[in-house]
Amino acid sequence: MDRLALYAQIQKKKSYLCIGLDTDPLKLPAVLKNDPDPVFAFNKAIIEATSDLCVAYKPNLAFYESMGAAGWKSLENTLLLIPEDIFTIADAKRGDIGNTSTLYARAFFDNLNFDSVTVAPYMGRDSVQPFLAFQNKWAIVLALTSNEGAMDFQTTMLDDGSPLYEKVLRMVATWGTPDNLMFVVGATRAEEFTSIRKIVPNHFLLVPGVGAQGGDLKAVSRAGMNKQCGLLVNSSRQIIYASSGSDFAEKAREAALLIQREMEELLDEITITDQ
Amino acid sequence: MDRLALYAQIQKKKSYLCIGLDTDPLKLPAVLKNDPDPVFAFNKAIIEATSDLCVAYKPNLAFYESMGAAGWKSLENTLLLIPEDIFTIADAKRGDIGNTSTLYARAFFDNLNFDSVTVAPYMGRDSVQPFLAFQNKWAIVLALTSNEGAMDFQTTMLDDGSPLYEKVLRMVATWGTPDNLMFVVGATRAEEFTSIRKIVPNHFLLVPGVGAQGGDLKAVSRAGMNKQCGLLVNSSRQIIYASSGSDFAEKAREAALLIQREMEELLDEITITDQ
Repeated sequence: MDRLALYAQIQKKKSYLCIGLDTDPLKLPAVLKNDPDPVFAFNKAIIEATSDLCVAYKPNLAFYESMGAAGWKSLENTLLLIPEDIFTIADAKRGDIGNTSTLYARAFFDNLNFDSVTVAPYMGRDSVQPFLAFQNKWAIVLALTSNEGAMDFQTTMLDDGSPLYEKVLRMVATWGTPDNLMFVVGATRAEEFTSIRKIVPNHFLLVPGVGAQGGDLKAVSRAGMNKQCGLLVNSSRQIIYASSGSDFAEKAREAALLIQREMEELLDEITITDQ
Repeated sequence: MDRLALYAQIQKKKSYLCIGLDTDPLKLPAVLKNDPDPVFAFNKAIIEATSDLCVAYKPNLAFYESMGAAGWKSLENTLLLIPEDIFTIADAKRGDIGNTSTLYARAFFDNLNFDSVTVAPYMGRDSVQPFLAFQNKWAIVLALTSNEGAMDFQTTMLDDGSPLYEKVLRMVATWGTPDNLMFVVGATRAEEFTSIRKIVPNHFLLVPGVGAQGGDLKAVSRAGMNKQCGLLVNSSRQIIYASSGSDFAEKAREAALLIQREMEELLDEITITDQ
């Protein structure tokens, strides 16, 4: 999917919501227990209940790999089900030497037909570039993550007085374009979005870690949006595990709708400010 | 597997060779083309031809994932085949927030029964620790890799005048012990092994990138060995693709034997020096 098509989705749905399909086989509603592929059945129900409210789905590969070959099958079937006009993210955090990254890119882009893959930057240019070589496919590179461990290396100060994650943004941005490269920027650090936008004004940012209350969503959106929105804000557990009963899909829709409505207001607010 | 058992293997086989099972379905010898699972058949032949010469096997996950669910099945069957007393490394370079890393750890340690997983450090402590919580299992954390892109971030100078990879070594070493933690240190930088050994004198180092000529092997071994060897030196393509004919397993054995013999000499040399 190209950037214009993604932005068109955002305008049409008045949403920049990404739903994380972190489908844990141990957390499935009892009603699905006898299904031959309960993970796929769960994803199918969630997607059917939410696909008009979100612009992206992001399966986290760890959940599927923890189920071995059967998990890959559930993932393959899930991808076939996601509507063509919705952006898909393989949250895999891969990154290896060039020929190996090329194989990962083929696995996710060619075989599973994902639009994008999350990529760890530690191994540098030749580990990221293979993901940038596919037409209308994207690498989403970790810059500043939302977990506690982000403080261990990402915010380490370099000899030029800037934190490591800023060097990652600056350098990785030269390897691709806003049409094939996004960055992961954690929402726990809304105050840093302003300086990040100075470095990468035009790239989409994938934002994990926005909490249930929506306070973060406002702060992050005001600091992080650009003229084409430029944000994909992810929510996983808050939506897909909104209920553990047989009404799980209905409750997931309600949770997604709450976020979509807030996003609609924020999109209006920021569009007006821009004019 | 614990550290003593690994060292016992090294002493018994007079080898610290790790063979990378980077089995590319496009590079298989014609003789296997009609096998129902040619990747597994290839691995089986390589393992049977080399298991007395090496102490570890390292399948690179990208090669198996590029084949989807069928690739996972080939990997599962390969793991069942590797003799119990040989150390196994899932070269996966994973790393995600805590609950996600726990799922990856379960996938590789519990389901596939690997002894170890390679882990990327960028997301910090909570992304690495889940891999350290399993009895007699290991995290092998990327410190300094052997690819060109290692110069992009790993050797970046920090405000204390040291390169980032040294901070990774120092900090990650406090999260685990020499009994559950190793580091990846690329062999293209033999001159850096001396300073690395000052930071992590007792940890095993997994060394990729040793070339066909063996010059690197000598330099790396002399600078990097400790009293319990402390090195696992990997070779992949040079061994498994030594021939593309029907004699591929025999030629793989010959290539492995050349390296094992050089390792035997180096083990003797360094043991004598130590006394």
